[in-house]
Amino acid sequence: MKIGVLTGGGDCPGLNAVIRAVAKSLMLHCDAEVIGFREGFLGLIERNAVSLSYKDVSGILAQGGTILGTHNRANPLSYFGRDGADVSDEVVAYYNELGLDGLVVIGGDGTMSISHEMEKKGMRIVGVPKTIDNDLMATDRTFGFDTAVSIATEAVDRLQTTGQSHRRVMILETMGRYAGWIALESALAGGGDIVLIPEIPYDIDEIVRVCDEREDRQSFTIIVVAEGAKPQSGKMTVRETIDDSPDPIRLGGVGNVIQAQLKGRIDSEVRTTILGHVQRGGTPTPADRILATQYGAHASELIRRGEFGRMVARQDGKLTSVPLSEVANMVKTVPLDSPLIKACHAVGMSFGAKL
Amino acid sequence: MKIGVLTGGGDCPGLNAVIRAVAKSLMLHCDAEVIGFREGFLGLIERNAVSLSYKDVSGILAQGGTILGTHNRANPLSYFGRDGADVSDEVVAYYNELGLDGLVVIGGDGTMSISHEMEKKGMRIVGVPKTIDNDLMATDRTFGFDTAVSIATEAVDRLQTTGQSHRRVMILETMGRYAGWIALESALAGGGDIVLIPEIPYDIDEIVRVCDEREDRQSFTIIVVAEGAKPQSGKMTVRETIDDSPDPIRLGGVGNVIQAQLKGRIDSEVRTTILGHVQRGGTPTPADRILATQYGAHASELIRRGEFGRMVARQDGKLTSVPLSEVANMVKTVPLDSPLIKACHAVGMSFGAKL
Amino acid sequence: MKIGVLTGGGDCPGLNAVIRAVAKSLMLHCDAEVIGFREGFLGLIERNAVSLSYKDVSGILAQGGTILGTHNRANPLSYFGRDGADVSDEVVAYYNELGLDGLVVIGGDGTMSISHEMEKKGMRIVGVPKTIDNDLMATDRTFGFDTAVSIATEAVDRLQTTGQSHRRVMILETMGRYAGWIALESALAGGGDIVLIPEIPYDIDEIVRVCDEREDRQSFTIIVVAEGAKPQSGKMTVRETIDDSPDPIRLGGVGNVIQAQLKGRIDSEVRTTILGHVQRGGTPTPADRILATQYGAHASELIRRGEFGRMVARQDGKLTSVPLSEVANMVKTVPLDSPLIKACHAVGMSFGAKL
Amino acid sequence: MKIGVLTGGGDCPGLNAVIRAVAKSLMLHCDAEVIGFREGFLGLIERNAVSLSYKDVSGILAQGGTILGTHNRANPLSYFGRDGADVSDEVVAYYNELGLDGLVVIGGDGTMSISHEMEKKGMRIVGVPKTIDNDLMATDRTFGFDTAVSIATEAVDRLQTTGQSHRRVMILETMGRYAGWIALESALAGGGDIVLIPEIPYDIDEIVRVCDEREDRQSFTIIVVAEGAKPQSGKMTVRETIDDSPDPIRLGGVGNVIQAQLKGRIDSEVRTTILGHVQRGGTPTPADRILATQYGAHASELIRRGEFGRMVARQDGKLTSVPLSEVANMVKTVPLDSPLIKACHAVGMSFGAKL
Repeated sequence: MKIGVLTGGGDCPGLNAVIRAVAKSLMLHCDAEVIGFREGFLGLIERNAVSLSYKDVSGILAQGGTILGTHNRANPLSYFGRDGADVSDEVVAYYNELGLDGLVVIGGDGTMSISHEMEKKGMRIVGVPKTIDNDLMATDRTFGFDTAVSIATEAVDRLQTTGQSHRRVMILETMGRYAGWIALESALAGGGDIVLIPEIPYDIDEIVRVCDEREDRQSFTIIVVAEGAKPQSGKMTVRETIDDSPDPIRLGGVGNVIQAQLKGRIDSEVRTTILGHVQRGGTPTPADRILATQYGAHASELIRRGEFGRMVARQDGKLTSVPLSEVANMVKTVPLDSPLIKACHAVGMSFGAKL
Repeated sequence: MKIGVLTGGGDCPGLNAVIRAVAKSLMLHCDAEVIGFREGFLGLIERNAVSLSYKDVSGILAQGGTILGTHNRANPLSYFGRDGADVSDEVVAYYNELGLDGLVVIGGDGTMSISHEMEKKGMRIVGVPKTIDNDLMATDRTFGFDTAVSIATEAVDRLQTTGQSHRRVMILETMGRYAGWIALESALAGGGDIVLIPEIPYDIDEIVRVCDEREDRQSFTIIVVAEGAKPQSGKMTVRETIDDSPDPIRLGGVGNVIQAQLKGRIDSEVRTTILGHVQRGGTPTPADRILATQYGAHASELIRRGEFGRMVARQDGKLTSVPLSEVANMVKTVPLDSPLIKACHAVGMSFGAKL
Repeated sequence: MKIGVLTGGGDCPGLNAVIRAVAKSLMLHCDAEVIGFREGFLGLIERNAVSLSYKDVSGILAQGGTILGTHNRANPLSYFGRDGADVSDEVVAYYNELGLDGLVVIGGDGTMSISHEMEKKGMRIVGVPKTIDNDLMATDRTFGFDTAVSIATEAVDRLQTTGQSHRRVMILETMGRYAGWIALESALAGGGDIVLIPEIPYDIDEIVRVCDEREDRQSFTIIVVAEGAKPQSGKMTVRETIDDSPDPIRLGGVGNVIQAQLKGRIDSEVRTTILGHVQRGGTPTPADRILATQYGAHASELIRRGEFGRMVARQDGKLTSVPLSEVANMVKTVPLDSPLIKACHAVGMSFGAKL
Repeated sequence: MKIGVLTGGGDCPGLNAVIRAVAKSLMLHCDAEVIGFREGFLGLIERNAVSLSYKDVSGILAQGGTILGTHNRANPLSYFGRDGADVSDEVVAYYNELGLDGLVVIGGDGTMSISHEMEKKGMRIVGVPKTIDNDLMATDRTFGFDTAVSIATEAVDRLQTTGQSHRRVMILETMGRYAGWIALESALAGGGDIVLIPEIPYDIDEIVRVCDEREDRQSFTIIVVAEGAKPQSGKMTVRETIDDSPDPIRLGGVGNVIQAQLKGRIDSEVRTTILGHVQRGGTPTPADRILATQYGAHASELIRRGEFGRMVARQDGKLTSVPLSEVANMVKTVPLDSPLIKACHAVGMSFGAKL
């Protein structure tokens, strides 16, 4: 048996744990030969493959990033290297030349849709879901998310003490362009006072109200904001705030925008931190290593069973798989009746808007 | 409304997060008065109660241990302070004197059975499950477990590098007297080579075989063993090993026993570490803080709904509750068909026995 | 004996460890009464004092921030609360009313100069140096710095894996407005490729050259930049870069400026992270707890010996003290012949300029 | 130029950082060829060498252990592989055959004395000090020590919360056979109540007195004990305690011995943790990575200058070197007038003996 593996899209803690689990299980239980493609689909397009030995995939479990490298825009259906030309047939040809019996593709929804198309063209693919933001539809949870939440929570913990010492309003901007999972969990775990997520457009007046109320109690305020948070319609927009700002140099993201919007409206000093890429780098948490290993093991089981055209998933805490065709490009946002939202509400957290 | 809260049994990261969530949600949404009892049921027996203010339960989310203190053997049905006398009626009387509308009891299966008995005697109780070992029947998961696994995994990570540098056999003994959850998850997350759990009695000959095989590959071996691991019947027992040992001072736990059993049978040096209580102390992981907060919030919801005599639980990833009567003293051991066992098998881990 | 203590200037991990050591040692060995002033000199100006018990200062060793609170602009010689009026006589009067035998002032160079003035007016003061940036003259090292370096280094570690996976140029902006200590040590500890510090004005052309060279080797680049880093004269300034930038919203600090300056000049994608206040919050490292405890213990020894008007210091690894008069407002910058610079040079790090 | 490098004795965080700094600086600045010997002097005895490329030593800065491997008993003057025969002439011959211009030996005092002997036989050696225990005479500080203290301190932090919740006496046994540095610094950093070190023989009666006193204050007690701690003469010895113990299986080290000696003499429950090898594994702290890099850079500077027969050292915070001949086998114990001892005394810590 000869199986290929690649990692596509943005990097994420746990990718190496999946590669390791896929390769080891296929080598140990099917005596398979495993080929890695460099930088996602780019390796298939540019014929950049490497044979993986058992030694190559040993000791990488706890390593962040991906030993295969990845690429954000490598798409055989529209290859940036040739002005968006469709090179998918060449890719299929290369796949056949190599005599592969299957391909494990680890990536996000974009990578999964490409995989679905390539599947139609005759490649036999098993997908493994990957997103730091945990916003993929067909699965409960994705590896890398627990790590991102841990890093963001540690930041909230640290901001608590400095916020308290100076009685300041501390703003932390986390990842989460379309869904607020990271902001929500790190705010809940770190004991934030206000959390702003894309699912609940914020009202700056409400944020001011909460900050004032806490200030009156001689207290400080921690605001956790997802990068995709947006104001309620009718309220001053991000762009208006920027144009309005006397000092554009301090505007780095929505966190800085909130800070600008608060300027002059509250007495406390405001400080903003934008975590950025540290949330997606470094060694995965144990929970992410386990989930990634389980995904990799399950992927190779699907291969052994010959169940291709499917993506590994976890639903209601159980491992399963779904057809690639069903992995829509839809984003899994935070439902307003989520137990997480309930828990935030229970302990008195504000969403920067009247619910 | 006037509600009491206590923490019983061994301490566990997340207890303060539960106390905080219970108290804050009842204060904020029911304007309730909250009373804390010191050192578990001992506080009810010895009338040692303290009124909790909103300030008292603020800023404790990330604190390890329990601000109320706990006690391992405080049982109203058989009070050690009076030669095992039944003082439950006095406890009920005190409960009524205080005019409590309900009591939140956070503890393990022992504490839950006591709660069930006290419930019968007229106290209105909501239970919150607590065990570092994750071995409680009615619930998928308990807070504190993720923290214990993180600490044990960090230890495995550290033993990896020292084991590799010296080509040694490194043994790590983790908690888990009746179930192997901590050993299993930390071995899987840390990339251990052999994992020994109570559910799968080990065969020392098989352990020797694996160590030799790895030694031949110029490699080292990491063994993770749960404190409750035991040899297969017919094999040399722990006690025999001890009596047989020339140097009893080096025997501290099953980890040291394995080391003694390996003595003279493999060429590599063997080193043992017993983590002990560091696994249950310190700040909880974000995942544990969130789970504990959700349990606390759900407990106060049950109180608001008047659903007493039940224990909060998580099943298939969803928050729910079960009757205290059903919370048997049974231990939730690792099923042999568990996806964790499968994942270990997939990546070539040994269980120190032929499965 | 009756001694006061206050913390001034920006917060810093280790402040509570100093307060604890000062208070415990004076209580245990001189049976002293200890008074804490809230929010630095503001507590002396606004007569906001609190008596500290042994219990108050127990269990705070590992806590970040300061239990007394602090204030950045509280100056008796020019009180912002009364349009910069000199209220120092009132402060001295209050100090005498309280019958204090001495005051321990924990703060940076600004706070020390105020202390020197108040000393002249008859207050008996012992200073304890505090700066996260480690840029105080007269002392080798300040507590909080080791913690800041640890946090920044962890960020470099994390950026390494994501930078490698995408072959990107990753920029990390650390604290350090006047001196590059944090950037230098975290770059050296994290294995950065380029480090930009205020002491060595950078040449963007040289940075481009290094990035290109690494790109040719199929490698990625980590740039650690202190917030106070500046370009060589003649080169495009920060302000010019901003005005020139098509998208001001992405400009948050010098890190973003470097990113803008690299735009269009290198092939790799560039990503910037600005750590900000997470560097000064949270629990101190063991080394900082020890240094802070030693400073606190030494401060109370000076008090016992009646040696006032001095600041605790560490020189050549030994505890000592210097006159407040000598604690100039001068900044301790990184000397170009520092062993740290040598070590960076030895392992091939670039300073973004030809040395 | 052709230089060899090896790591001897027990492993230690920072070894790879030294190897990297030595190799990179020699390659970059002297265009040298660098040879690594496997498992310390064993590689020279068994002619097991490997050529190190720039790539080989890249990305290992933060890795624990040693990529070259190490061996505790490999001594050319008495080779265990040939019944203690002196094979030093063969080693020198091999060294000459390889045409080495020098050898960097990273190790503890044992390794340094061997190096001194080999130096006499014509090998040109530069030593780099290594000991996790920080007990080497000629140098202020050794890399790996800060990491060990951090790990031990984290354990103390964790034991604080569990000790407090149960009002127990918690014992932590740290490394330190001949000197108490790790126990002392981790106890000081973690806020331990009693610290037992080899330099100050303990009196169990005094330990009982302190535990009782704290128990009366409703408090708990943290005891940090170095593995080499011993009782005062006349008091019950470790061996007597063991023979006297009803349950030898619980006796694992001096920590357990103290527990046995406390049995029946205090009311509180006692729990012991023995950290063992986790203290020497895993990634080094930033401070250790920097010190190791500086040592490695300084070692290659000595080589460039042709200053052989010396060991790199840090004295009064400055990098320097000392003759191998002067690196006696003496241990650097904790002086009783050390500022660390003073600081412990200041905050009321007990040494388990009347000083």
